[in-house]
Amino acid sequence: MLPYRSLILIDKKASLPVYQQIAHQLIRLVQKGHLQPGTALPSTRDMASFLSVHRKTVVAAYEELFIQDWVESQPRKGFIVSPQLPELKPRSFRKEAKVASYSSNTGFDLTPLKLHLPIPLHGDYRWVIDDGFPDGRIIPTDSILKAYREYFSHHNGKAPVMNASGALSLRSELATFLNNTRGLSIEPHHILITHGAQMAIYLTARLLLRPGANVLVGTPNYFYADRIFQQAGARLIRIPVDENGIDVDAIARYCRTKKPDLLYIIPHHHHPTTVTLSAERRMQLSSLIQQYHFPVLEDDYDYDFHYSSSPILPLASTDHGGRIIYIGSLTKLLSPTIRLGYLIAPQNFIEEATCYRRLMDIRGDHMLEEVMAMLFKRGEIQRHIKKSVKLYHQRRDHFAQRLQEDIGDAITFRKPDGGLAAWVQFHKKHSLPAIAARARTMGLSISNGKNYSSGPESLNGLRMGFASLNEMEIESALALLRNSL
Amino acid sequence: MLPYRSLILIDKKASLPVYQQIAHQLIRLVQKGHLQPGTALPSTRDMASFLSVHRKTVVAAYEELFIQDWVESQPRKGFIVSPQLPELKPRSFRKEAKVASYSSNTGFDLTPLKLHLPIPLHGDYRWVIDDGFPDGRIIPTDSILKAYREYFSHHNGKAPVMNASGALSLRSELATFLNNTRGLSIEPHHILITHGAQMAIYLTARLLLRPGANVLVGTPNYFYADRIFQQAGARLIRIPVDENGIDVDAIARYCRTKKPDLLYIIPHHHHPTTVTLSAERRMQLSSLIQQYHFPVLEDDYDYDFHYSSSPILPLASTDHGGRIIYIGSLTKLLSPTIRLGYLIAPQNFIEEATCYRRLMDIRGDHMLEEVMAMLFKRGEIQRHIKKSVKLYHQRRDHFAQRLQEDIGDAITFRKPDGGLAAWVQFHKKHSLPAIAARARTMGLSISNGKNYSSGPESLNGLRMGFASLNEMEIESALALLRNSL
Repeated sequence: MLPYRSLILIDKKASLPVYQQIAHQLIRLVQKGHLQPGTALPSTRDMASFLSVHRKTVVAAYEELFIQDWVESQPRKGFIVSPQLPELKPRSFRKEAKVASYSSNTGFDLTPLKLHLPIPLHGDYRWVIDDGFPDGRIIPTDSILKAYREYFSHHNGKAPVMNASGALSLRSELATFLNNTRGLSIEPHHILITHGAQMAIYLTARLLLRPGANVLVGTPNYFYADRIFQQAGARLIRIPVDENGIDVDAIARYCRTKKPDLLYIIPHHHHPTTVTLSAERRMQLSSLIQQYHFPVLEDDYDYDFHYSSSPILPLASTDHGGRIIYIGSLTKLLSPTIRLGYLIAPQNFIEEATCYRRLMDIRGDHMLEEVMAMLFKRGEIQRHIKKSVKLYHQRRDHFAQRLQEDIGDAITFRKPDGGLAAWVQFHKKHSLPAIAARARTMGLSISNGKNYSSGPESLNGLRMGFASLNEMEIESALALLRNSL
Repeated sequence: MLPYRSLILIDKKASLPVYQQIAHQLIRLVQKGHLQPGTALPSTRDMASFLSVHRKTVVAAYEELFIQDWVESQPRKGFIVSPQLPELKPRSFRKEAKVASYSSNTGFDLTPLKLHLPIPLHGDYRWVIDDGFPDGRIIPTDSILKAYREYFSHHNGKAPVMNASGALSLRSELATFLNNTRGLSIEPHHILITHGAQMAIYLTARLLLRPGANVLVGTPNYFYADRIFQQAGARLIRIPVDENGIDVDAIARYCRTKKPDLLYIIPHHHHPTTVTLSAERRMQLSSLIQQYHFPVLEDDYDYDFHYSSSPILPLASTDHGGRIIYIGSLTKLLSPTIRLGYLIAPQNFIEEATCYRRLMDIRGDHMLEEVMAMLFKRGEIQRHIKKSVKLYHQRRDHFAQRLQEDIGDAITFRKPDGGLAAWVQFHKKHSLPAIAARARTMGLSISNGKNYSSGPESLNGLRMGFASLNEMEIESALALLRNSL
């Protein structure tokens, strides 16, 4: 008999139940050939005594093996290892020792891509000041779990009809929600549900841009949008951004010389500076679009969060002849763990974008889409927006006050009207990369600001998300920041 | 007072609770200005009588309004509409009637893309014979729900550390699983979790292919892989596929003239033909890779399903110096609603692929990734594989027998050794597109076969998934197919 006592190790503190630990280790012994087909297992009483566990635990482990066909029950003999093992052993086709072929780097030439994307540093910091995320801890988890349960019981009978544009139920709810909140006039077939708003930017770039295309973007601009357009082969034409948003006069001057292939704008809480495009400039821009007929990508990721002033209806709500691709995000509404965005466009664009999406992704998360549709239907999302606007309003005020008190001398910043982050620039004598490096050693993760400067000159600034931390956490994080100066 | 009786409509059969229906409709009345700030609501008793509902229902509705700040409680007056409404009304910047700018098509020129992808027909068919999906109805939903619950309670305190390569927990479990089942020798940093295996193909194409690149593919080949390579600007070099898989002699002949930029292979249950690349050819191919150093994309989407013969270890398990990108799918293991795939490669490739993934998608579904990691850890996935292999084995046999009996005269087909679909070719005199069209009118959705022919000549064949239907359903679906001949 095998020395089970030493072969099977039990960790009573592990999250895996003990009976499963025993079952798994017995399976490994069979797989490795230590327990041959036909071998009888010790009686449950003996095994329990070898392993110092309750006999019922061994009974449960043996039952698990029986369900999985690893053992058979034989009269008088008890359990024996199945003569026919339930898995087909893979055949090797080369006699060689196990090789770690992936341990060295690939020799493929990856340089032509020039992505220059820093991989975010991951670590277990005490505090993380993010780029402007919602607080995932306040989402209605009970309702979400309930909706998952309903999804499973509903689809137990028949496979769901899945659509690469997204679940029809979610597109219907979203059409109503966007028509009510943004003054749009759309139907479900004007919507493509994406895996996050980023995918909507990527798809638009792939559909509209060819190498050499001219894309007007703000300076500074959302870092990843710039990289997406460049990957599609486009040239970036930089348009200044001031306290009223992107400079529409500068856009007009460009249009008089050349038709842009795309204009990318972030009308509310511009990334990174958080400024809002004024109503006057929106009117001007709306006329320009009607005059010059160029495509516009309106990235209104932060529309639902306003504290001090009303949101302004998007350009997409005006008469633009289908030239504005409008995108938004449910991730920003709920939690960074919920990756859902949407793209609004004329039907022929949505169809083509859906085709392209199938190439890179087949389709979205049908389960999550249906769950979100149920939450919309029950008003849970609308209610969550109210609740979070109230909470983030308080957090913004608290954050702004403490920031001023703690490091006001070292920075310039504007309390944002809405959104989930503030734009904070350090005075020249305080180097942000040095501060960020010091902060990390103290357990606080903040950006070093590199991603926020689109020109050669460093803005020495960063976005500081205030929504995902509560007031106590904000205080602790800012105290560490002060010590990092 | 407003005529509440006629303004508020209650549908007792709706899934939305009645109190929420009342609350929502009252909110709409406030939003539309019918109920002005300061107006007193009828007492709960009166409102209950107007609407013929229980008074407790009205109390619940008013409480909902109170929580959401739409009403305030005033001594002696009861509830009044809040003088300060909880939402900031959006400002319009143009005086114009609501316009349906999206109703016409966009005038953008989308033709250069030439995607030529048919959008799948969605409809409520009685039966759908798919391309080879698992049966989502048999997944361990209780365990999945339990894991979601644990995820929420675990992350209630602190935001999760999210990684664009995928949750570390899932990459660790997957490394162990793949090392055990595929003879690989990898660590978590050799894995990128993708949103479905399709994304892994797309990322590989974007990283390795430049316009004019030469990609060797089978003929026929997985339709979407061809389109992905073409989108990246590659030329497809067609290599014949026979009953032993892709013709390695033909690959060798090509290599003697030119180094391919990529070879795409599907070693188990080739798509569409379901043939398996023989051990002899794998040995030959392995030598070729060592000799000519070209990159290989090994798409082993169907490895876990074998019924009549053992799986053969992948090429990725041999000594290839990091030249094989190996991809697989959890979607195929569990359910089409669970979109998770993986890409295995050397660390520098994984890092670059993660960067590119951030451009198009930021990151994956952290929640789903953690849930799947828990299922792996508890052995639930491994157990589910055993259970489904057993079940799909029976379904394959039943399907093959009924197919032969029902329409054997009209077709040529080979019972597949494994996988989730059979490759069925109709004799010339039976036009598959015509059969598919007739079947649809009878409530059976099957492919018209267009996507399976990569050359100009139609193969008049289709993949018929047998795994997602039970034996009764297979019989009903095949009976309809017989009637469509």
